[in-house]
Amino acid sequence: MKRVAIVGIGHGKFGVRSDASLRELTFEAVKACLDDAGVSLKEVDSMVTGIAGDEFSLALQPSAQVHDYIGFYPKPNFRVEGACATGSMALRTGWMNVASGLADLVLVVGVEKMTEVPTSVATEIMGRGGDSMWEYPFGTTFPGYYAMMANAHMAEYGTTEEQMAMVAVKNHYYGHLNPFAHMQKEVTLEKALTSFTVAHPLKLFDCSLITDGAAAVLLASEERAKTISTKPVWIAGLGLATDTMRITERESLTSIAASREAARIAYQMAGVGPADIDVATVHDCFTIAEIVAYEDLGFCEKGEGGKLIEAKETYVDGRTPVNVDGGLKSKGHPLGATGVSMAIEITKQLRGEAGQRQVKDAEIGLTHNVGGTGQVAAVHIFRRE
Amino acid sequence: MKRVAIVGIGHGKFGVRSDASLRELTFEAVKACLDDAGVSLKEVDSMVTGIAGDEFSLALQPSAQVHDYIGFYPKPNFRVEGACATGSMALRTGWMNVASGLADLVLVVGVEKMTEVPTSVATEIMGRGGDSMWEYPFGTTFPGYYAMMANAHMAEYGTTEEQMAMVAVKNHYYGHLNPFAHMQKEVTLEKALTSFTVAHPLKLFDCSLITDGAAAVLLASEERAKTISTKPVWIAGLGLATDTMRITERESLTSIAASREAARIAYQMAGVGPADIDVATVHDCFTIAEIVAYEDLGFCEKGEGGKLIEAKETYVDGRTPVNVDGGLKSKGHPLGATGVSMAIEITKQLRGEAGQRQVKDAEIGLTHNVGGTGQVAAVHIFRRE
Repeated sequence: MKRVAIVGIGHGKFGVRSDASLRELTFEAVKACLDDAGVSLKEVDSMVTGIAGDEFSLALQPSAQVHDYIGFYPKPNFRVEGACATGSMALRTGWMNVASGLADLVLVVGVEKMTEVPTSVATEIMGRGGDSMWEYPFGTTFPGYYAMMANAHMAEYGTTEEQMAMVAVKNHYYGHLNPFAHMQKEVTLEKALTSFTVAHPLKLFDCSLITDGAAAVLLASEERAKTISTKPVWIAGLGLATDTMRITERESLTSIAASREAARIAYQMAGVGPADIDVATVHDCFTIAEIVAYEDLGFCEKGEGGKLIEAKETYVDGRTPVNVDGGLKSKGHPLGATGVSMAIEITKQLRGEAGQRQVKDAEIGLTHNVGGTGQVAAVHIFRRE
Repeated sequence: MKRVAIVGIGHGKFGVRSDASLRELTFEAVKACLDDAGVSLKEVDSMVTGIAGDEFSLALQPSAQVHDYIGFYPKPNFRVEGACATGSMALRTGWMNVASGLADLVLVVGVEKMTEVPTSVATEIMGRGGDSMWEYPFGTTFPGYYAMMANAHMAEYGTTEEQMAMVAVKNHYYGHLNPFAHMQKEVTLEKALTSFTVAHPLKLFDCSLITDGAAAVLLASEERAKTISTKPVWIAGLGLATDTMRITERESLTSIAASREAARIAYQMAGVGPADIDVATVHDCFTIAEIVAYEDLGFCEKGEGGKLIEAKETYVDGRTPVNVDGGLKSKGHPLGATGVSMAIEITKQLRGEAGQRQVKDAEIGLTHNVGGTGQVAAVHIFRRE
């Protein structure tokens, strides 16, 4: 199997970007990525675009706006989608593009313009990421789905609202140190706990943000990587797994089976285990999701996720630092961009370029990205040499 | 580069399928595909789903409905999209999946349920496959875009309305011999010419159909292909190219530059030229599009497309038989399914299983699939041994 490396990263500012369209957001990230790699667009062979929702910007084939605006035509580009895990699907497809020998240098772009529509409409569009026939029409939207998981986790393992709020405190702390984050301010435990209830037990500060943003990485074959970067970050494991459309058909509400399976595949491919992971970004669309991810990825025993955050083991100086870029919770969650943004954070950490948020001597990193309520999940493992 | 073969094909009935949902349409095609290959779903490693529009069925992550309903979880699946060329993007991604070594046996599904919404809404959704900011809001929908191409072609090369109608006559003739086609009836030249005008010079019978349907192919690595099929059809060339978002920015209205570039890449990769193609399926979303495709793919000189159909050179016994399955025109055009359906027709032809529509001794086939107004195009070349 051919080896594929990340040789360039470009992160746009996440936030309510009323100043920029889908195409302009993309340009921002692509420009930064090419500058980082020291490569011109002309040298790039192919491109993959991750965009989750046609409905946010009412465009069929939104990827064409992207290759048009950055001037990439006539070279190959198309769109991939996997709801909230779309960015990781784009990375996977970019990897396949290089590893198959079809291209040597591939640009992977993730972008979403979510604030084009009112928040209520965005919530509705995302709500259809559950079963659009058998769940959403009965009124379920994402805070509701994850509230069910939270209630089940509390009932089964004694996880507390305080522990969930502690995830928010951590992620806002790191988000306030990340210049690309949507919310760059800290939050106290008290403020998080007393914020208004969205869907019991989830409160405002348990929920991630509706965000505009773009992120881009440049992938290269081994031969090309050596000519471009002195600090290539290798993609060592790719896990992708699926589950039932309906959350009501899952065997458990306290775990995401697709995450466990994707992690199993990725660990096996990379030849490492949970204890080898120096730094991770996980899918904290809600605080409970981060706690569940700790367990599904093997960072702690099942049911011990609440205690892991309570012991601060997922801070930069803890056992397994998680979401020290602010996570979806504070950095924001522009659906198509999130998976790519996660890969950028891990690349920065493995290059030793994360500044105040740097995990010491990080060599192996992991990203974990969930689509919908867990209908799909991707786990990628990265390493430096 | 690893070799990848089609070892199974399954085509659902195209039409107004009020009897079946997106998921049920998929099941139909997947079942037929696995039966054809003599392989069980359990043996399949991975899956790619091509669906063009979230908005037809108002679902985010429609691919999850698909893997759920056929019972494919927990194995990998995600969605790819390239407007009307979506099915070809799925085939390309499936090829990369096998060629990269990530999987040995990959199911490629293309499906669309377009009649879930009224025809006017479907036309609107597709209209946004042009530039949704700078074209569609001013009232342009697809018949309008292609009418511009038709008028330009008539003005520049003397192409006639009769020649366009001849494409309809041919494709309806072959469609009436294809049990999976949406419209299984012949049309006379007079009837086509006197049908009502949709967008001058395009009349009703110059336009393809709004159709529901699904198609699936099974791809295998060389090692696996030999154990599954005695008639593997090899994917010999993959060309993908893009162009500007806006048709108004193209250098010409009488040619689709992305088609020419995709063809160039595919011919080069396969080591063949237009004269080697024994049978082709091309993107006849409108009759003028088939005429333009003849020229862009090199089946005749620029401007000679009208004469090629007039001389019946694209009939089964002609120089280069084209769309002898009925094409989008008569078989129907369920966006996500079309590219996969094209590959199925070529596979049937190369296996010698096309019955009354069989092209004698076909060895090399080509598919040509255009997204939007030509923002993207895919050309694939297939061969038997």
